[in-house]
Amino acid sequence: MRTLAKEVANQIGSQVTVSGWIHKKRLLGGLTFINVRDRSGLVQIVIQNKEEVEKLRGLQIGTVVNVTGTAVEEPRAPGGAELHDAILEIIVPVEEVPAIEIDKPIDHKSENQDTLFDNRVLNVRNLHEQKIFRIRSEINRYIREFLHSNEFVEIQTPKLLAGATEGGAEIFKLDYFGQEATLAQSPQLYKQIMVGAFERVFEIGPAFRAEPSMTTRHMSESTMLDIEMGFIEGHEDVLKMAENMVYTVLTRLYEEHGDALKSLNAPELVLKPDFPRFTVAEVHEMYTKATKDDTTEEKDMTPAEERWICEYAKKNLGSEAVFVTEFPIEAHKFYQKINPENPQTVLWADLLFRGVEISSAPMRENNYDKLVQQMKDKGIDPTHPGFKFYLQAFKAGLPPHGGFGFGLDRFVQKTVGLNSVKEATLFPRDINRLAP
Amino acid sequence: MRTLAKEVANQIGSQVTVSGWIHKKRLLGGLTFINVRDRSGLVQIVIQNKEEVEKLRGLQIGTVVNVTGTAVEEPRAPGGAELHDAILEIIVPVEEVPAIEIDKPIDHKSENQDTLFDNRVLNVRNLHEQKIFRIRSEINRYIREFLHSNEFVEIQTPKLLAGATEGGAEIFKLDYFGQEATLAQSPQLYKQIMVGAFERVFEIGPAFRAEPSMTTRHMSESTMLDIEMGFIEGHEDVLKMAENMVYTVLTRLYEEHGDALKSLNAPELVLKPDFPRFTVAEVHEMYTKATKDDTTEEKDMTPAEERWICEYAKKNLGSEAVFVTEFPIEAHKFYQKINPENPQTVLWADLLFRGVEISSAPMRENNYDKLVQQMKDKGIDPTHPGFKFYLQAFKAGLPPHGGFGFGLDRFVQKTVGLNSVKEATLFPRDINRLAP
Repeated sequence: MRTLAKEVANQIGSQVTVSGWIHKKRLLGGLTFINVRDRSGLVQIVIQNKEEVEKLRGLQIGTVVNVTGTAVEEPRAPGGAELHDAILEIIVPVEEVPAIEIDKPIDHKSENQDTLFDNRVLNVRNLHEQKIFRIRSEINRYIREFLHSNEFVEIQTPKLLAGATEGGAEIFKLDYFGQEATLAQSPQLYKQIMVGAFERVFEIGPAFRAEPSMTTRHMSESTMLDIEMGFIEGHEDVLKMAENMVYTVLTRLYEEHGDALKSLNAPELVLKPDFPRFTVAEVHEMYTKATKDDTTEEKDMTPAEERWICEYAKKNLGSEAVFVTEFPIEAHKFYQKINPENPQTVLWADLLFRGVEISSAPMRENNYDKLVQQMKDKGIDPTHPGFKFYLQAFKAGLPPHGGFGFGLDRFVQKTVGLNSVKEATLFPRDINRLAP
Repeated sequence: MRTLAKEVANQIGSQVTVSGWIHKKRLLGGLTFINVRDRSGLVQIVIQNKEEVEKLRGLQIGTVVNVTGTAVEEPRAPGGAELHDAILEIIVPVEEVPAIEIDKPIDHKSENQDTLFDNRVLNVRNLHEQKIFRIRSEINRYIREFLHSNEFVEIQTPKLLAGATEGGAEIFKLDYFGQEATLAQSPQLYKQIMVGAFERVFEIGPAFRAEPSMTTRHMSESTMLDIEMGFIEGHEDVLKMAENMVYTVLTRLYEEHGDALKSLNAPELVLKPDFPRFTVAEVHEMYTKATKDDTTEEKDMTPAEERWICEYAKKNLGSEAVFVTEFPIEAHKFYQKINPENPQTVLWADLLFRGVEISSAPMRENNYDKLVQQMKDKGIDPTHPGFKFYLQAFKAGLPPHGGFGFGLDRFVQKTVGLNSVKEATLFPRDINRLAP
């Protein structure tokens, strides 16, 4: 019977067997100590017997072992217990010196990024590195639990599409049995269609973008959460759902994984259930006044403004998350609803968190005739096969609806406090990287 | 304040407003009845006022409305209540006659498949059709909850790969900034690598296969659950996890959604916590004896045998799920472990359910030297970039491990009792279908 590392302290006085990887070896006062890592953490083991010490010779970090010994209280050991009189059984010997140090705190400097990803197979065994991806797994779980409790239905929509539907952006193309297919950049059209059946839907899946720039912000494959909800009374309903989700997920994460976040030097959480809301025009004005850097002629938000308004809200309003609303008409996409009270703006909000946009949350145009007109105004052909089916849903009756795309990689990055979205991704893909 | 259809019965005597789609209109004894559909179900409404009846004229099924009226007990109405003295507010008018009948029980005959998928945008509004995808959403949820409670970490691995790693099978290729990339057929290599960090991992995501045959069993894009677990004592541990998952998910589904399953004419569940296990050789022998159709010279299982053994186990052993173990060496893939007790067989089990394979659950070869030899024996180049990183994980120490790929579409199909895997998929993709 295997005992997990975290359970050793509950077995004081008993003989137990742990199974895991040798994580550290050291000599101290004539005694050999090893740490063994398993999925639950580390356990410290004292090797006294000469024969057992001999077994360790030539074996490297990563060696897979069973260790049987007596559980003894030891406040200085991880978990407050260690194994004595240990007997080793080598399951998988490792002879090569590992290419990375498994035990060091993470040090994600920008100049080390290539080394980091080239050695991802190994460095993800680092306890600190692991925590990032355990937190990512939990964030996925909390998001889904929140959405299920709000009656969202999970959908799985195709990533292989018949030609590009949204023009402009970079799209991967492939040969599909002799015709051209493209890889989906988002489930935008499908999730809107599904409002007609389930009202509230979500999907977590890959999104593909042939992003030719080499930055810390962009990947050619990312994980997106997409939600869509119908029968909203207005745009504000979408914002409320988004803030409620982010607040619920983050407060739960800091509560249940506070220690892991602290050990990763994640920032303290500064958040209230209601996130401040500013229009783009208001941000331009506030930023210009505060910095003397005039952005009042800007249409979109600048990255400097995104950082500034988050800092401002954190200091003055107790919130690291901010909605910026009423984007100017220049940014309008055909499926978004123009603000009826100010047709120079769109009912589109960005959710900023710790200085960057993590989600874009617009309301949609749900009137068939207006939607077709908006397509034509933008030179989009409503009879394109990718749109024909989309428009069917509107013709058959779609209620007022809105939703958001939510960048999971970026959310994990900003939650943990990493430099790059790629550090929050197990195997990032960009223009220069297609492996491992 | 909106009241959901399912909540009307709790508001008897009160004036409430429901929002939804007109689902049915009919005249009965001089009264106009409409059913309104929302995400929670149907509510029946009696329209008495002439002016209100007039509003309905020319409006089709699918019209989006708010209806305000008094909630009245009515045992014959869905949910046991209906609205009287109703006042209609048309939110989105619908003028075209819908292309499909929204209210009919599903009738998935094989000759109707193209009509079904061409009209998916509309027919998913059908209450019966919807149930399939609500059940699918729940199956996803139950699987994840089971895996989290068993300490699996959710991972998200790239679908864009540097060239084909597993030779032979049909692979989609695309241009990736001037180099060739392929679409992942499974997260096989990544999930094994991740055993080195988390021991137990899973992923639910799309899998791509350029499947040139047009059958009811194959799609070019499917949703796969992939799990991998380390520190197993033997192959049996993998089987136990798989049967425990399937048993837990199915019994919970039949408990919580028994009515929906019944209304879809899903088969009754015949299952025990322990699934019967037969070797491939045993099935050949039993089948040959029972049917006089000699399969003892066959290597793989035949489709007829898969159906037969499931029927046999259902009738005689009280289980619609069966493991078939010890596949012949001819089917061996390089990463699978050869049975040390019988090197003519592989430690590979298929999980059959209601006549088809829903999961393939092998143990892996975790010894670096043996693995490299198995690759070479199969003419696979261990220095291929796709394998270089994979092998790093073994060199650094990987414990005995195994896992399974689990076809979610097929599992939903067989659970609900559908004819084709495509009927369990919102927007199926095959050689002839890339839309909607």
